[in-house]
Parts: sequence; C-alpha cells; structure tokens
Amino acid sequence: MTITSTDPRTGDTVAAAEPTPLADVQRLTAAAAAAAPELDRRGREFRARLLRAIAARLESRRDAVVALGRRETGLPEARLNGELTRTVYQAEFFAQVVEEGGYLEATIDHAADTPMGPGPDLRRLLVPLGPVAVFGASNFPLAFSVPGGDTVSALAAGNPVIVKAHDSHVGLSQLAYEALVEACADVDAPQGTVGIVFGTEAGAALVADPAVKAVGFTGSLTGGKALLDIINGRPEPIPFYGELSSVNPLIVTAAAAAERPEAIASGLVASVTGSGGQLCTKPGIVFVPAGAEGDALLGEAASLIAETAAFPLLNARIADSYRDITAAYTAAPGVKALATGAESPQEGSFGSPRLLEVDAADFTTAVAEECFGPTAVAVRYSGEAELRDAFAVLPASLTATLHTAADDPDLAPLAALVQPLAGRLVFDQFPTGVLVSWAQHHGGPWPSTNTLHTSVGATAIRRFLRPMTWQNAPVSVLPPEVRDDAAVPQRVDGRLRL
Amino acid sequence: MTITSTDPRTGDTVAAAEPTPLADVQRLTAAAAAAAPELDRRGREFRARLLRAIAARLESRRDAVVALGRRETGLPEARLNGELTRTVYQAEFFAQVVEEGGYLEATIDHAADTPMGPGPDLRRLLVPLGPVAVFGASNFPLAFSVPGGDTVSALAAGNPVIVKAHDSHVGLSQLAYEALVEACADVDAPQGTVGIVFGTEAGAALVADPAVKAVGFTGSLTGGKALLDIINGRPEPIPFYGELSSVNPLIVTAAAAAERPEAIASGLVASVTGSGGQLCTKPGIVFVPAGAEGDALLGEAASLIAETAAFPLLNARIADSYRDITAAYTAAPGVKALATGAESPQEGSFGSPRLLEVDAADFTTAVAEECFGPTAVAVRYSGEAELRDAFAVLPASLTATLHTAADDPDLAPLAALVQPLAGRLVFDQFPTGVLVSWAQHHGGPWPSTNTLHTSVGATAIRRFLRPMTWQNAPVSVLPPEVRDDAAVPQRVDGRLRL
Repeated sequence: MTITSTDPRTGDTVAAAEPTPLADVQRLTAAAAAAAPELDRRGREFRARLLRAIAARLESRRDAVVALGRRETGLPEARLNGELTRTVYQAEFFAQVVEEGGYLEATIDHAADTPMGPGPDLRRLLVPLGPVAVFGASNFPLAFSVPGGDTVSALAAGNPVIVKAHDSHVGLSQLAYEALVEACADVDAPQGTVGIVFGTEAGAALVADPAVKAVGFTGSLTGGKALLDIINGRPEPIPFYGELSSVNPLIVTAAAAAERPEAIASGLVASVTGSGGQLCTKPGIVFVPAGAEGDALLGEAASLIAETAAFPLLNARIADSYRDITAAYTAAPGVKALATGAESPQEGSFGSPRLLEVDAADFTTAVAEECFGPTAVAVRYSGEAELRDAFAVLPASLTATLHTAADDPDLAPLAALVQPLAGRLVFDQFPTGVLVSWAQHHGGPWPSTNTLHTSVGATAIRRFLRPMTWQNAPVSVLPPEVRDDAAVPQRVDGRLRL
Repeated sequence: MTITSTDPRTGDTVAAAEPTPLADVQRLTAAAAAAAPELDRRGREFRARLLRAIAARLESRRDAVVALGRRETGLPEARLNGELTRTVYQAEFFAQVVEEGGYLEATIDHAADTPMGPGPDLRRLLVPLGPVAVFGASNFPLAFSVPGGDTVSALAAGNPVIVKAHDSHVGLSQLAYEALVEACADVDAPQGTVGIVFGTEAGAALVADPAVKAVGFTGSLTGGKALLDIINGRPEPIPFYGELSSVNPLIVTAAAAAERPEAIASGLVASVTGSGGQLCTKPGIVFVPAGAEGDALLGEAASLIAETAAFPLLNARIADSYRDITAAYTAAPGVKALATGAESPQEGSFGSPRLLEVDAADFTTAVAEECFGPTAVAVRYSGEAELRDAFAVLPASLTATLHTAADDPDLAPLAALVQPLAGRLVFDQFPTGVLVSWAQHHGGPWPSTNTLHTSVGATAIRRFLRPMTWQNAPVSVLPPEVRDDAAVPQRVDGRLRL
C-alpha cells in the first residue's frame, strides 16, 4: 500500500512512496555488501571528502528541505533550519574526526620479551563492520533520519548505509536521499554506498538480512523491542543501537526554587514545549520542592503553559498516543492538572501542552512512562528521603538535570543519587539541545538505550567499528594507521603518542 | 546435588562443592550492588592496589594452585605454572593500565561558541557499570575462571564481581576465590566486592538477577546461547560478552609449503595438540596446497601426530563430545584419516590426537564446526579460487593465520580475503598463545564472539564501563579525571593531551 505523508496542520497529503519490494531490499543489501571492502580500502581521506560532499549537497538544498519539512512535520521553520545546520555541521565535524584518526585506537606493541616469554609484534586498529541499517526517526527528520548522526557515523567508520525512511516524512526522505546520492557521485563512491527502503516490511527484512552487520535506531521502546526480536532470531546476532525512551528527570533544589523561580519556570516551559515536546531529551518529570517557593515556581510555569497554543504533532499516531497518555496520567491517583494550553481550533494532529502535579508520596510508575509531547509532571517533594524513594520508581534516562543554587548543601550526594539513572548529568541548564562535540554523550541505561554507546558526538562512530589485530604482519598488508610513525595518534609499546 | 570434580587421568574424585541456594545468590548480588557505588568512589589508586594484592595472593599460593590444578584438570604442570604467571602478570598489567588512566577516555569540551550557538561545558568519562557476573571456563582454570581476564577487567573498571565456578574445577575455584577474598581484605575493599556461586541453577539465577549489569563468559556456543536467552528474557537487557566458538583457519601458501614444510608441520602439531587441543585459538582447519610439497608437509605432521600419546581431556563431557565430533568428521564425505595418535591404555577422559584430510572440493560445514580437542582437518587446495569457495563455508573465528614465504605474490588480496573471518590475523606464527598487552585483540565476528569487544588485553576493561557526560557541572561533583589538568590523558577541546 502506498505510504503517504500528511501535513499535520491541515491533514493534506504531502508526498507518497511505494513500499520497497523485498527483492529490492535484497538487491540493496547485496550492493552494500559488495561496496563494503572497497569503502574500507578507500581510507580516511576519501571518507572525509564524502562527508564534506554530503554537507555541501544538503546545504545547497536548504530552502527546499526546510519548506518540505515544514509541510511534512509541522515543525517550525526556525527549528528545521537549525536542525539542518546541525546536520551539516555534524558531517563536517565527523570529517575532521576521521582526518584526526584518534577514533581508530591505533595501538602497536613491538615484538619484545615479556614475563611470559617472547611477545610477538601486535598492531590493533578499529575496522569497519560492514553494511549498516539506519532507521529514520519521526522527530528528527534531518538529524536522525536519512541524513543525521547514524548515517554519518556509519559512513565515517567506512560502512555502506541503507536507510529505512520514516513513514511520516517520505518526501523529505527522498529529497535528502537524493543529496546523499549526489554526494556519493561527487566523490565517485562505490555503487551501493548508500541505499534507501520504504515501509515496515522492508525495514524488517533489512534487519533480518545476513548482509547487514549493525542497526541504528531512534524511536519508541515498542519499535526498538520489535527490531531486537528480529535480531535475536537471526543466526548471527548483530549490534542493535537503539535510542528508545527517556523521561529526563529534572530536580529543582529548595535553594534554587527560592533563588530564581521565574527563570527556572520559563526555561522549563521552553524545554518542555519546544518542538511540541517531541524531543528525546524533554524534561518529563520535574521534582519541585513542596511549599511556597515551589508553588511560586509552578504558578509561573502554569501561566506560561496556559498561554501556549496547541502544537501540530508529527503525525496522527503520535497525536493519538499523546492524548491517550495524558489522559492516563491525569487519571492516575493523586494527579492534579495545573494548566492546559489553549485548545486548537483544528482537529486531528494537534496537542495542547499540559502541566500536571503529584505529591512525591503518590508518585508511581503510572506517571513515569515517557509521554512524547508537550507535557510535564511536577512531583512535589520534601527532603532527600522523598527524592530517594521517588528515584527508586523512576526508569533510567538519557539525561538528568539538577537546578541548584549557592545556598545548597554539598551537591555530591545528590549527583551520586542521580548518576545511575542517566547518561548525561546537566547542571543549571536544560537537557534539550544536544551539542555535537567530542565530549557529548547521548545514551544511558535501559530503557533509554540498550547499549553502552552514544548516538551523538565523535564517539558515535565507535558503534560501527570492530577491533582487529595483526600479529607479525608484513608492512605491505598493514593499514597505514598501524604502520610505524603513521600520522595518527597511536599507543606504541604502552605509551600514547600524538 | 553435590558437584564433584574428578582427576581426568584416574577418574578419582578430587573436590566437591554444594550448589549455591538461590537465596544466597540473591544475597550475593545485593551485597555486590551495595558495594558498587563505594568501589566507584574509591577511585583508580585503590583499584590498582586491589589488583596488585590479587596478583600477590595468587602468587603466594602457586604451589598449592598448580598441584590441585594438575589433579582437577589433567593439564601439565608447566602449562598451569605458565597460566598462573600470565594471570598474575595480567592483574599487575591492569593495575598499570588503571594508573595510566587513558582507558577512561576523559574528554573535555569547554563552553564555547559553535555554529549552532553557545555550547555548554561538557565532560565525558567512562564509569563502572555495576555488578558483573563472570563464568569460569573449563579450559583456563586460572586465566578465564575465578581469577583471570574477565574478573580483573571488571574489577579494574571498578565493578564488583560474582564468579560462577566451573563444575570441573570446583576445588581450584575455591582455592583461587580464597586468594581473592584475602586480597580484598588486604586493601580493605567493601564487603560484596567479590562473590562466588556454584552450580548451573545458581549461574542462571545470577544472569537473570536485576542487580547484575553485565556478563562475561568463555565457553561453548550452546552454553553462550542459553545465557543469551536468559538475558533476552530480562526486563532490562544487559551486555553479554561471550567468547564462544572458533575454528581458527590456518593457510599455508604454496611458497611456504615449498620453503619450510618441516618447520610448519612441527609448529602446527605443537599448536594443535598443546593443552590437549583445548584452546580457543587452536588451529582447527589447515589449508595446505595440493601436490607434492603439501604432501611432504602433511606427511611430516602425520608422523608427529602418530607419535603423540592420548591426552587426558578436561572432563568426561568434553571427552565424549571429542569422540563424537571426531567420529562425525571422519564419517563426512571425502574425509580421510591421515594419522591418529597412540591410543591411551586408560578408559574415560582420554582423547587421541588426529589429523584428517579433505579436498577443498569436498569441504563443507560438516568439518567446519569447532572440534574442542587435539584434532585438525587439512583442506587441500589449488589456487585462490578454491580458497575463496572454501572460505564462503567457513564460520568466522577469533584468529586466522597465514604461513607465507618470500616467493609469494602480493599478500594483500589474501589478507583482505581472510580479514572478515577473524579478529586477529597472524603471519608465520601460530595463533595459540594470546599475549596480554595493549594491542592484543581476542574476539571476532560471530560465532567466535557475540560482541565487538575483546576478552584479552588492556581494552578488555572497556566491556564493563559506560560513558557518562557532565554538563555545566560544578567542580565539586566532577570525578578527578575530568577536572582541568588532571594527571590522565584527556582530549581537551578536540586535542589529545598526555
């Protein structure tokens, strides 16, 4: 059945794509498998050129991409422009990372005597895994979709990529894919370096295909588990890098609530409602002290929420699910609605922002499930013991945030309490906005991700590489990076060398 | 039912242990979970002291360990002495790795303007995962058992460890565990830093326990799959690092066979029969050129095998399985027995070495399954096309080995053909003997391992760490390694700094 995308603001059809027949999926994976050794051989200089060509080709289509994105996702123009800038920067940044070469972990132990007898010459390097399947996410049509973090990580590592386009922006997926194809042509990349499939069945076939050696996925816990089940059924299990579900607790200390209630309230509402709350790092559960100062903070937040119009959500399924989960939250014991945004005159895919409140004593898993959309639950707490009890209920997240003040007691115990629940610990800022950089980490304990890896930042490349060691090998077969005096960082006989 | 270990040379009972009741398993995992934050807090200097104390306590029991190991495993004294030396060295080496601190991947991006606007201060570090379950292997009672690579990797990373003792050396497991307990006392480690369980049910309960955050396993593909099934059934999936099954192809080029047939034959027979062939890196499939020079090499190898006495295998199950698989190999179409070692006068656990032969045209998966024991299959080939066809049948391995000579044509195509099938590529040496060092890699594509990680060498620590980033954090909550000017290698604002 033809896949159509819809403007969530109007319900109008925007674009269409045919589901990829399974025979075509197999042709694409075979082409990717054939391209893999050649891509490996081409080396880092080529990969950096390919990444820069992708950046240039995406940038050159900026106007068309943003205009189509606006219609297919309902996201604001400024957000789509920002997302494209981020994706272009990311491709250029990864080109630099590849050129620098430290990500390869090149290591040389020369032959030497050891306490166990003579040791051989050993040279270790990370090598590409092979074809990677990337699943586009609905909420980042440019940053985690056909272009984006997973695609450029896999290409930077030297692997062919086949993307499963997200149903809700098939037009943008096609447009962005054309940019990838042009970029491949610009640098004369091997046939099969990039591919695209449409439709759920084609996506499932991709994950099951023996030629595919890893999967990158950003999406729901349910979707992630379905793909994991396919992988667990393969004769050869392969790495699945899923970024799945995150409630992103944010804790306001009593001192912080007293010091700057308005600043925290306005920052919080912006972070909860930005992009219609459809960000994996949206702070969904906010711990606010009981009492007057917490009341003031939430009063300010409630008025800001009440003034906020409904958002066009990304698609009808997300809008339905948002309505269901906010209804379930509201119906949970002890939960009180503090504010609801202006209702939309439109039907369909719009969702109004909401601020709910519950006492820490009533906080249960019923309000600790991710709500994808512009809603936050304020949990009112008194003292660290109540926080500790609430945290025992909380699932782990990509991020946890602390808003603190100079008057706070030693923060180390609070940070230690939160650390097991998150991959990134934010202080006095908001978790939305994930900078692409060397020190970034976007991942966390289950269910936020299922791996120990990141999907943002320089180390995202590591997901698509495996270690390989050459023992006593002639120089002629060694990759350049593990030859003596190569121009990349190496650890030689135990010592790091730049 | 009481678990008893047996001397494979005599069938006499050596030691006994009671299966750990499930309530005790839970007490152990709870103690480990309680110890985890304190172990994290103690820091690297403490961990290095703990590792050195383990080395010292194992060394001080050398005589008792080797004597009991001799009885429980049937392995020669020289091998057990060498294995203990390796394990002691490994603990000391990991202490150095921990002290150096590069394994933490400390990364700092100071707050700065970026193409996406102002970027926050970000600091990334690898942090401990939590309690680790380690499954002892039958074939490395000291290097991959209660002490060994997995245990010291997990402790070096800062995690508590609970070992599942292997049934076939329960006495040695208890003795080595006492050394670990003494070492913990020497450095005043938190209660729960180490634990031990006995029996299959206790092992399964350990893997299913929510407090356990990773599993290290060296053993059979069947055993590994059973544990993976338990993990796949957990609400929270956790990393499973399995080192499973490996046939370790070894290729002799025509030029090498012509140049040094006797040296290759004697090295090969030593590698195939060392430790009764019960090494995960034993070369099991040997590609030998068809024709006179290959005949000469195999003739020499056959006489060496024929002179070799039967080995006491590690336990009766392994001996039974060895008999079954060598019988199946021998019965496979086109397979010819070249030599069988002297039969043992003893019943029970002894296995005779065997050299089999098959033409490349007849090479099928029937002889490409791992045979754990002193047997190798020679595959006679003519030219690269036959090699290529045979490689399409071959499962991936921990290692692949090439024996080459100066007269060989360019080796790069042959190396490229073999690379996807192995994690370590050995030239003109033998794959058995896995040095503990910085550049070592002991892992490979499925089914040799199920992950992209190693179980030997400095980077084995990485398995038991997860990344964590602090954003805009006060110095007081930052771990020392991500403070400015810490005494560990750091990447600061994109530049590596020693």
